[in-house]
Amino acid sequence: MTDRVVLAYSGGLDTSVAIGWIHDATGAEVVAMAVDVGQGGEDLDVVRQRALDCGAVEAYVADARDEFATEYCMPALQANSLYMDRYPNVSAISRPVIVKHLVKAARQFGATTVAHGCTGKGNDQVRFEVGITSLAPDMTCIAPVRDLALTRDKAIEYAEKHNLPIATTKKNPFSIDQNVWGRAVETGFLEDIWNEPTKDVYNYTDDPAFPPVADEVIISFEAGIPVSIDGVAVTPLQAIQEMNRRAGAQGIGRVDIVEDRLVGIKSREVYEAPGAMALIAAHQELENVTIEREQARFKRTVDQRWTELVYDGQWFSPLKRSLDTFIADTQKYVTGDIRMVLHGGRATVTGRRSDSSLYDFNLATYDSGDTFDQSSARGFIDIYGLSAKQAAARDEKFGQGPTL
Amino acid sequence: MTDRVVLAYSGGLDTSVAIGWIHDATGAEVVAMAVDVGQGGEDLDVVRQRALDCGAVEAYVADARDEFATEYCMPALQANSLYMDRYPNVSAISRPVIVKHLVKAARQFGATTVAHGCTGKGNDQVRFEVGITSLAPDMTCIAPVRDLALTRDKAIEYAEKHNLPIATTKKNPFSIDQNVWGRAVETGFLEDIWNEPTKDVYNYTDDPAFPPVADEVIISFEAGIPVSIDGVAVTPLQAIQEMNRRAGAQGIGRVDIVEDRLVGIKSREVYEAPGAMALIAAHQELENVTIEREQARFKRTVDQRWTELVYDGQWFSPLKRSLDTFIADTQKYVTGDIRMVLHGGRATVTGRRSDSSLYDFNLATYDSGDTFDQSSARGFIDIYGLSAKQAAARDEKFGQGPTL
Amino acid sequence: MTDRVVLAYSGGLDTSVAIGWIHDATGAEVVAMAVDVGQGGEDLDVVRQRALDCGAVEAYVADARDEFATEYCMPALQANSLYMDRYPNVSAISRPVIVKHLVKAARQFGATTVAHGCTGKGNDQVRFEVGITSLAPDMTCIAPVRDLALTRDKAIEYAEKHNLPIATTKKNPFSIDQNVWGRAVETGFLEDIWNEPTKDVYNYTDDPAFPPVADEVIISFEAGIPVSIDGVAVTPLQAIQEMNRRAGAQGIGRVDIVEDRLVGIKSREVYEAPGAMALIAAHQELENVTIEREQARFKRTVDQRWTELVYDGQWFSPLKRSLDTFIADTQKYVTGDIRMVLHGGRATVTGRRSDSSLYDFNLATYDSGDTFDQSSARGFIDIYGLSAKQAAARDEKFGQGPTL
Amino acid sequence: MTDRVVLAYSGGLDTSVAIGWIHDATGAEVVAMAVDVGQGGEDLDVVRQRALDCGAVEAYVADARDEFATEYCMPALQANSLYMDRYPNVSAISRPVIVKHLVKAARQFGATTVAHGCTGKGNDQVRFEVGITSLAPDMTCIAPVRDLALTRDKAIEYAEKHNLPIATTKKNPFSIDQNVWGRAVETGFLEDIWNEPTKDVYNYTDDPAFPPVADEVIISFEAGIPVSIDGVAVTPLQAIQEMNRRAGAQGIGRVDIVEDRLVGIKSREVYEAPGAMALIAAHQELENVTIEREQARFKRTVDQRWTELVYDGQWFSPLKRSLDTFIADTQKYVTGDIRMVLHGGRATVTGRRSDSSLYDFNLATYDSGDTFDQSSARGFIDIYGLSAKQAAARDEKFGQGPTL
Repeated sequence: MTDRVVLAYSGGLDTSVAIGWIHDATGAEVVAMAVDVGQGGEDLDVVRQRALDCGAVEAYVADARDEFATEYCMPALQANSLYMDRYPNVSAISRPVIVKHLVKAARQFGATTVAHGCTGKGNDQVRFEVGITSLAPDMTCIAPVRDLALTRDKAIEYAEKHNLPIATTKKNPFSIDQNVWGRAVETGFLEDIWNEPTKDVYNYTDDPAFPPVADEVIISFEAGIPVSIDGVAVTPLQAIQEMNRRAGAQGIGRVDIVEDRLVGIKSREVYEAPGAMALIAAHQELENVTIEREQARFKRTVDQRWTELVYDGQWFSPLKRSLDTFIADTQKYVTGDIRMVLHGGRATVTGRRSDSSLYDFNLATYDSGDTFDQSSARGFIDIYGLSAKQAAARDEKFGQGPTL
Repeated sequence: MTDRVVLAYSGGLDTSVAIGWIHDATGAEVVAMAVDVGQGGEDLDVVRQRALDCGAVEAYVADARDEFATEYCMPALQANSLYMDRYPNVSAISRPVIVKHLVKAARQFGATTVAHGCTGKGNDQVRFEVGITSLAPDMTCIAPVRDLALTRDKAIEYAEKHNLPIATTKKNPFSIDQNVWGRAVETGFLEDIWNEPTKDVYNYTDDPAFPPVADEVIISFEAGIPVSIDGVAVTPLQAIQEMNRRAGAQGIGRVDIVEDRLVGIKSREVYEAPGAMALIAAHQELENVTIEREQARFKRTVDQRWTELVYDGQWFSPLKRSLDTFIADTQKYVTGDIRMVLHGGRATVTGRRSDSSLYDFNLATYDSGDTFDQSSARGFIDIYGLSAKQAAARDEKFGQGPTL
Repeated sequence: MTDRVVLAYSGGLDTSVAIGWIHDATGAEVVAMAVDVGQGGEDLDVVRQRALDCGAVEAYVADARDEFATEYCMPALQANSLYMDRYPNVSAISRPVIVKHLVKAARQFGATTVAHGCTGKGNDQVRFEVGITSLAPDMTCIAPVRDLALTRDKAIEYAEKHNLPIATTKKNPFSIDQNVWGRAVETGFLEDIWNEPTKDVYNYTDDPAFPPVADEVIISFEAGIPVSIDGVAVTPLQAIQEMNRRAGAQGIGRVDIVEDRLVGIKSREVYEAPGAMALIAAHQELENVTIEREQARFKRTVDQRWTELVYDGQWFSPLKRSLDTFIADTQKYVTGDIRMVLHGGRATVTGRRSDSSLYDFNLATYDSGDTFDQSSARGFIDIYGLSAKQAAARDEKFGQGPTL
Repeated sequence: MTDRVVLAYSGGLDTSVAIGWIHDATGAEVVAMAVDVGQGGEDLDVVRQRALDCGAVEAYVADARDEFATEYCMPALQANSLYMDRYPNVSAISRPVIVKHLVKAARQFGATTVAHGCTGKGNDQVRFEVGITSLAPDMTCIAPVRDLALTRDKAIEYAEKHNLPIATTKKNPFSIDQNVWGRAVETGFLEDIWNEPTKDVYNYTDDPAFPPVADEVIISFEAGIPVSIDGVAVTPLQAIQEMNRRAGAQGIGRVDIVEDRLVGIKSREVYEAPGAMALIAAHQELENVTIEREQARFKRTVDQRWTELVYDGQWFSPLKRSLDTFIADTQKYVTGDIRMVLHGGRATVTGRRSDSSLYDFNLATYDSGDTFDQSSARGFIDIYGLSAKQAAARDEKFGQGPTL
């Protein structure tokens, strides 16, 4: 019986080319596996057919949209996951769910090898391979594009030579990855970091400079998860889709940064994540209202580490899972409503209400009738400032006091 | 000779009322000290005269605008200081410079007591008093408004009864603090956190919903400090003022959050900081281009701690100063140009260039001719993923492997 | 009906004196509550009787030893809790369990006030009061010793004047707190930090300079908890007691440090914690064997924050509980045996074995037959070192390269 | 002219064998470079001659002992550097100084290649190669032992076959690395982690079970650096040597741990570092006395990251240098005397005194006459505990309050 390799198939240039390469190089039959994480665009049957046309012996499509939204996007939301304070880990959280389906398919088809079409200088190769060995330590990974060190130019040449039915031409050389959480665009003239993105780079968002009328929305959360929008119950997937539509129409969620890759280089990336960015803004503000100060401060450290780990391909690692338990514990009171105005590239929180709020009007108000005992303040300050005061007195003793 | 108290005088309700209270309560003469940190608004001579009219024996104005911009705002910029990821520490960084001038004045006038007009439930009382004991451990602080537990209503009543020449009435009860780094608004109907700010809350920014035409700007930094704008050399103060003007016209830098105060309560705050927010966005992106990954990752932890300390009134503390040395060391290559488009509430970086950039086109490009050796990737991934792989194999051994 | 106050009663000078003071000051009846946390020493009936003799209307003793060991000491062990890398939080973890019993008693006896005998400059007042308001936000705390600002000298005078039946005299002025997790000694000539502790300071440990023969012990853990010693099943309490006895006989666990108190001062403290220190050393090494590297690295940050929070009286705080969930998740594989030699003040791990070990002989060995693929190393190093290399090349470009 | 390769030569098996291998494989002439970092043992002339006997065309010895002590050990001391809380980074800090001399020699002899004898599964290969590319991004590294994947057994076979004059036999298979900061031992029967180290493993320390009489020492520091011992001025090198001698005689500084290597595996390591461990204990306690609390707390995070970076081969990285500036700033008041008793494996601090101490007897004492204002405590606790109290009240509201 011929060996089989399960290939992560996107329908794009690199993985279409990979089908032939794997067969040429190993003699194995290639099973193409496309995972629907809400990337939209092409019809799934078309993608499936293309895999077969490119030489796959089998081609499957897994609809992982709800799973992706619930088990991958929602944890990212609860972690307010923004790598380098900007990038909502769009591709980074999709790799593990794809990996899960690849490994499942490999088990099912008796394959011991999994393949992906990533190059050798990106993060995704690491996310795929570390993910695969973390789910199936016995399995082998191959990366035909990388291991033959083929550039994009050569891939195009190969595709043209073999008449592969793929639309990419030398004139449209962007590398794009997209899913329901967002869209990533790189390469091409963006590699000159002084160049501004042109309008054709964007697809999930309309131009924020010419917005429609402002759109007010109320997002209701339970334990850190959006459960209804404007009073209509939604699943996590629906919440993201609805916010993609509405925030996208307002041009919200465009990101353009120079980013530190795991493989040690800086790269220029453009992202669009309208739903993710609007939901994160809402979630952050609901946390502000419902999470105690010290818990919130430490959670920033946890959120940052979670985000780095996920960016760095460690979704299935022990530390990631321990951080998950921390974050889950912080979310139990993150329940309530956030009112937001979406307009012209801005997602602005304008109101928040929550039964589990820690905001206490009676303590906070400056009107008469407040319950805050201001006479405590002097004692607090005396002790709170004592160690700095002692250090200051020492500075003076050593002639290191302030110059006034 | 009569005792003297130096009072931090803002010209507003609380400190105008305080002049009389201090005299009534202690018999001391009150020296009013206003520090110009770019708060604008009233003429300084008017403020000075009001102090005298309210009973001060002396009244001085110190022009600390350049000092504030250079020694307080610039460190905040280098730390990308955003408390709770939103608030650029507008009031928090102005207190230490005011404290410095108060202590200087007290030394000059032979006063051993310094007074401020803060209430007992805010952060500023802590910033003032911890700041004062950190610069002058021998000095005494008094806080007439707080220590008599007077609410805003009573202050208004007192002012009216004594015919103090101050404009605040019961109908305009916002509490406002402003300086060149931004503007803070609280109290009033904002204390209901479901209420949206009305247009009259804002003063530094125009409505982002109706912006003028987009404004492109090039900000040039040297070692993390803006040194020219559109090719024209600027001082730090000029940089902030110019960006306040241009970003303010586009409605950039509005913030509306529920915030964790040092004194243990949550409060609702509205801020405007057009220049600060635009400069921070530019600075962050220039750091992305010029700071090495691990240094950048740890700097986020340092920036957060710096920001918390400054928010918490520990500007002059030993830890704050040690963090300053760390941050200063990271800035030496943060030199270069950021091109930004200001429009409709958005400050969008569209280009970056730097002689000290770590972005390397030849490593990053996906075109042929790149210098990145992709054959290194397999070995990297094998070792990078090894400890997670071992942990995964253990999970399987104990039946704790993934459910596929 | 007369008001009642539940007093945390230790049997020592301060709380014995407090019974009378509370009654004098408030007219309330005092219910004395002693909580057995393994402090040993006096018979509990004697302590109970002393409370009555000092004027309490009721006196109770709660045996909280197992509860304390299981719910307070074991989490401290799992967190390897050593404040300032030295102090195993002996008193800090006993306060919350005492608080729990005080609040329970107050609810039972209809008291709305709880009292403790702490002074105003220590940590324990904070631990008691923050603990009480965290369990019973409606309850009032009083602190008779502190609020009358009485020094130890005055307390002794009061006790002598009222013929209170307590042994403390002016000649033995140490302040001691002890429980099964350890023993704390302060004040007296130890307040001169150049003085060496004399032999009479110690009680839980024999002199390590003259040890008996070495004592080898095998401690078996399940999920981070000691479950047997030398093959004999033990409860957490028994584990601590047995290790106190055996490590104490070898003089293990003496600590002498200058410590940063929460209230802003430095104090000199001497501790003995033979069982705690030996168990922590064993637990740490079992973690080294069973916890994945990145999880272990981040756990140090979590352990430090947990330790600071607990030291600072925040046992019942939201952040503490979230950190607990993180730590619990890391412990699931901390199962196995640690062999240790106890001798002359040293608890030395000499062997470790675990079914859930991540130590892999075949990967680690330098003998032939190992399974580590050394050919991966070059690729790993190339990419791992890439960002530092880029930064070094920039240094050279700017003439900032190394001086050789 | 024949190519030249500069080889890091230790005199041991691996690097002696490497001389021939490099020549065989590349045809280049090998220049052997031994760096004296206080490893003691063999006479340097003997080592130098052995290199020549093994085929080197040139052989040099650099005396880097003072440089190593001052520029590498002292920073490690100031960082209290203990990887995994145990290992004082003995080998880790010696690699960068060796690298510096290798690069210097390569520049001098016109070599563009540097070689080391490390295997492919250890940390030192990373430290060498990342160090070299960080000092000389243009230089090439080769690692003959690793790149031929030769095990220790094969190396012994090669040495025997070529009659190389090296003493290692199959009967003494420990792998040892030593310098003035300590000594590292691995492999052999230690690879079974249940085995106890035998007495012959140790060389820097005598058996702590049979110590000579206790040895009291006073170490004086200036700005975190030991400057005199028992009143006699010492250089950093002398301080370490003297403490190695005295603490070594007492069996201080033995470490036996399972350690997380950078390359993803756990390994068993035995270390001896008598001087380092005694100096670190003294330095930590002087920090306790002289560093302000919040500065000290954050310094632990910095120390841990510094230690990980140095362990991980990033001595010359940008982050490491920024952390250095932080640490340097914290040390300016770490000046004073620590009295210590060395005895039976224990280095016990018994006294500390410092003009720049933050310990204030008058604030700390429980005698009458203290200057601490205890009346501040109530206000402090009210505000300090407020946010946890609010969270507790919410717990109760939601029926999540404590079970009493």
